[in-house]
Amino acid sequence: MATALAHWRQRADDVLEQALRAHALGDTRLQAAMRHAALLGGKRMRPLLVYATGRMLGASDAALDAPASAVELIHAYSLVHDDLPAMDDDALRRGQPTVHVAFDEATAILAGDALQTLAFRQLADAPAPAEVRIAMVRELATASGALGMCGGQAFDIDATGRGGDIGLAELERLHAMKTGALLRCAVRLGALAGGADITTQAALDRYAEALGLAFQIRDDLLDIEADSATLGKTAGKDVAQNKATFPALLGVDGSRARLADLRGVMADAIAPFGDDAAALAELARMVVERSH
Amino acid sequence: MATALAHWRQRADDVLEQALRAHALGDTRLQAAMRHAALLGGKRMRPLLVYATGRMLGASDAALDAPASAVELIHAYSLVHDDLPAMDDDALRRGQPTVHVAFDEATAILAGDALQTLAFRQLADAPAPAEVRIAMVRELATASGALGMCGGQAFDIDATGRGGDIGLAELERLHAMKTGALLRCAVRLGALAGGADITTQAALDRYAEALGLAFQIRDDLLDIEADSATLGKTAGKDVAQNKATFPALLGVDGSRARLADLRGVMADAIAPFGDDAAALAELARMVVERSH
Repeated sequence: MATALAHWRQRADDVLEQALRAHALGDTRLQAAMRHAALLGGKRMRPLLVYATGRMLGASDAALDAPASAVELIHAYSLVHDDLPAMDDDALRRGQPTVHVAFDEATAILAGDALQTLAFRQLADAPAPAEVRIAMVRELATASGALGMCGGQAFDIDATGRGGDIGLAELERLHAMKTGALLRCAVRLGALAGGADITTQAALDRYAEALGLAFQIRDDLLDIEADSATLGKTAGKDVAQNKATFPALLGVDGSRARLADLRGVMADAIAPFGDDAAALAELARMVVERSH
Repeated sequence: MATALAHWRQRADDVLEQALRAHALGDTRLQAAMRHAALLGGKRMRPLLVYATGRMLGASDAALDAPASAVELIHAYSLVHDDLPAMDDDALRRGQPTVHVAFDEATAILAGDALQTLAFRQLADAPAPAEVRIAMVRELATASGALGMCGGQAFDIDATGRGGDIGLAELERLHAMKTGALLRCAVRLGALAGGADITTQAALDRYAEALGLAFQIRDDLLDIEADSATLGKTAGKDVAQNKATFPALLGVDGSRARLADLRGVMADAIAPFGDDAAALAELARMVVERSH
């Protein structure tokens, strides 16, 4: 299974590289900033979810390249904008200077904008029936817009500094929008490519929603446990900014217990697929156990 | 014709209002910023081009609502980001405070991001065959990404301050990307909805490319001639920033002569459509003669 994931990770990198080369006007500063944002590292969790889900349902790698790259381009753009001085003001990402540090703020804003645009361009060209492609556009736009990722980020900014005022339900809703929506979207894009029926879709949604929440709880735990070098980004920011986090609300042990619960939810959700779900099971393990 | 344009302008406002309400999570700050950006004024030139082109070719208003609003949402997002302190740093737009002034920078960045997303969401739901919708997604993404509007804006930032170094061909290419691509896209979206054949498409491209260039030449002339109150944005910025402009390269009289030429190109391009092209002719006149 580790081999399949490594293969898909490499494949996602290649598809992104190709997309960025095809939609560039030579060797511009904008292009360099877009490449910096999309190609330098990253776990490629979202493309891996697209490939693992789609292949499980019988889609080919080739049919999954466009949605895998599209969802990663949305993720990459969101990181570039989130790191800006007016947002999280972060200088380090994946062990590299963030885009506005390596280039400048204006270029970072534009590179993020153009990465978002490229995500939808990728879906337009996918080798799939037009009905499937347009369903993917709808899914990706819904997950990343004001009702999904962007809305969650705005919610998070609004919530920062009032850590003590936020309850568990509100915190879960925030993260379901901010990071959960796009992770779920990755699974849904794979399901669309694989022609999932309603029952399959519902099981995969349960898996994906648990995975999104687990991802965030692990992220909060890492911010406490790890140092910046291991993390590849600035550690300890949550406490410094008085952000509501799962460890703050549930305690460290409570958060770990919740993680274990979610792992069970994921295992149950994909149990009907048996061995075919080995890649999704491995991704669940990685999210729960990851150290960066 | 003035009546048709007024009708379509109102229709575009209504469609935008409806889209923003449908894709919002209640009364948030992000939502208010998105409404500020998309609903407070604007000439609605791009929606008018969609409606005028599409109706000329037999499409219904209802079939044109989604592409008309989508192209305006892209335009609105680009203005929000262009006005940011790291970009053009403008405090006034359409006679109103810009989004980062009325709200804050983080909200302006996110509102722009979510407006772009909403543009693609609108196309996904258009009442048209999936093939037409996906062609519209491709068109809009190409026009607004690194090879179109975003690339042109990056090009413009790179060119600012070296006004004297830029030749006419380079300046035309810059504006063909920065503003021309989206104006041409508006015409193309109308043509897609109307099922234009290749000959029609080529004629409309000639019209749209001349219109885009005329739009920018008029913009440069207005920056010299008008005051900020009439313009609804800060006047005289081009000279202050040592920007390359058409008046700087061609002189004021030379720029006016070029505008007259372009008006002729537009008239020739739409002549085959006879009276059916009255709305496109009126839009050409407005672009050449506009005072703000």
